[in-house]
Amino acid sequence: MNKFLININGEIFNEDTAKISIFDRGFLYGDSVYEATRTFNRIPFRINQHLERLFASALKIELIPTLSPLEILKNIEQTIEASPQQNISLRIILTRGTNSDLGLDPQLSSSNNLIIISKAILPNPAWWLTLGLSMVFYHKKLSKDKGSLSKSGNYQDNILAYKEALRKNAYDAIMINHEGHITEGTTSNIWIVKDGVIYTPPLQDGVLSGLTRQNLFEMCKSEKGAIKQNFVIKEKSLTTKDLLLADECFISSTTRNLVPVTTIEGQAIGKGAPGKMTLMLLDAYLAFAGLQ
Amino acid sequence: MNKFLININGEIFNEDTAKISIFDRGFLYGDSVYEATRTFNRIPFRINQHLERLFASALKIELIPTLSPLEILKNIEQTIEASPQQNISLRIILTRGTNSDLGLDPQLSSSNNLIIISKAILPNPAWWLTLGLSMVFYHKKLSKDKGSLSKSGNYQDNILAYKEALRKNAYDAIMINHEGHITEGTTSNIWIVKDGVIYTPPLQDGVLSGLTRQNLFEMCKSEKGAIKQNFVIKEKSLTTKDLLLADECFISSTTRNLVPVTTIEGQAIGKGAPGKMTLMLLDAYLAFAGLQ
Repeated sequence: MNKFLININGEIFNEDTAKISIFDRGFLYGDSVYEATRTFNRIPFRINQHLERLFASALKIELIPTLSPLEILKNIEQTIEASPQQNISLRIILTRGTNSDLGLDPQLSSSNNLIIISKAILPNPAWWLTLGLSMVFYHKKLSKDKGSLSKSGNYQDNILAYKEALRKNAYDAIMINHEGHITEGTTSNIWIVKDGVIYTPPLQDGVLSGLTRQNLFEMCKSEKGAIKQNFVIKEKSLTTKDLLLADECFISSTTRNLVPVTTIEGQAIGKGAPGKMTLMLLDAYLAFAGLQ
Repeated sequence: MNKFLININGEIFNEDTAKISIFDRGFLYGDSVYEATRTFNRIPFRINQHLERLFASALKIELIPTLSPLEILKNIEQTIEASPQQNISLRIILTRGTNSDLGLDPQLSSSNNLIIISKAILPNPAWWLTLGLSMVFYHKKLSKDKGSLSKSGNYQDNILAYKEALRKNAYDAIMINHEGHITEGTTSNIWIVKDGVIYTPPLQDGVLSGLTRQNLFEMCKSEKGAIKQNFVIKEKSLTTKDLLLADECFISSTTRNLVPVTTIEGQAIGKGAPGKMTLMLLDAYLAFAGLQ
């Protein structure tokens, strides 16, 4: 059995056969948008939210979808049905399409390409919750608009940030904007807990609107969430110092949920162990999101 | 006969058969660098300069080439030999390779992919030299490092700028950095002539080091160029006002050489016709570069 199932415009391939024209604008120019989500017992997780954000990302790069949300959903369902696994990750890529000639002109392509990459989702490694992750800062200041632009196929800044983490044997890097405010991990949102309050940077600092981020705000402000625990959650611009002096730190992402961060640049955050509030919030979130 | 010949890792394809794995990092993340050049009577134009810049671009995104310049040259020569035409354009794309799994980690790919796209080069339309081009400004301020980063597969900003030009029925858009200085066209360098002096923005304003740009400086500072004409050429930060009040304006690119710009945002530049100095410089350049 192959590891991946890939749906290209409604046809299913494996990782050896899944190919796209080199005239696809995603390949030529990174001219694509994407979403990463998962199934839980064969049900795609919060798929409407993901499709909404996919269309919002497309709007930001003025990519006019030639497929409707329903057509995209049909291909997602086709992929899930073709998969032997109950729980799979789904990367949904919408490119501006295949160019009829070289050139930036979007009119050179008349219809989008839709690629869905799926494979069995693995549980988070156990040590993530017992030891927590180590992170570093990526000190190259990035444009403030950068992160908020869209979830797109232009990922070079994030790759360079990730390489910085690799060099320092860390799990990932935290990016910083032109004003010196921290923004996000290369594929996650970042959070701290200080004096009992949960903080994350506002979108306008150059942060992608993560769905787990959105869901945490929703949960903490809903009755259901409030009953479990009186979480106080706020958006606030954060500096590297705020992170280093935090009581707790964690990242969030759709495929990884919440994961504690226990060291940054080799310095222990709080007690240098996964934070109590972080673990309570994770429990509450898994229940709230129906992921357990 | 097909329009394009495409060389993928040493095999020749046409535009219907040229496909790449959807796990290629160029497709997933825009994780690639490229060069655009041409042949003149089957000889690739200044190919060493182009290969040098390709490797410089790779270095900027920390892409460690798994191919040597000689190996890349071999595939370029194979492409030229396979082509029936004397004069072809060449787009040379080097991606970080095909990932064995999803993820930003460059170690997921062990060898690069080299794609060379070629087709017959068409002469510039005659009206470019009689009427000149119309341009607009793209007013979204771009990060200063942006343009200077590398000639890479992350082209979304330029696509958005180009779309702005399309909306205003212009040929192309001129981009502007965070400090309000103009940088470049979406696929060209930009120049003005004022009081007999030729100006272009310095690289540190966020400008890609165009090879025609380099060659113009080389020509104007060499004996050969100086004999033909005493061109005075300078780097200088330029504002939108400098462009609108210029005596002449033109763009440069390897595939188009020098092309006069006669209107910007609907306003005539100088006399609203291709400038004398521009046309003299073009003649001198074609002779200098051996393109006539």
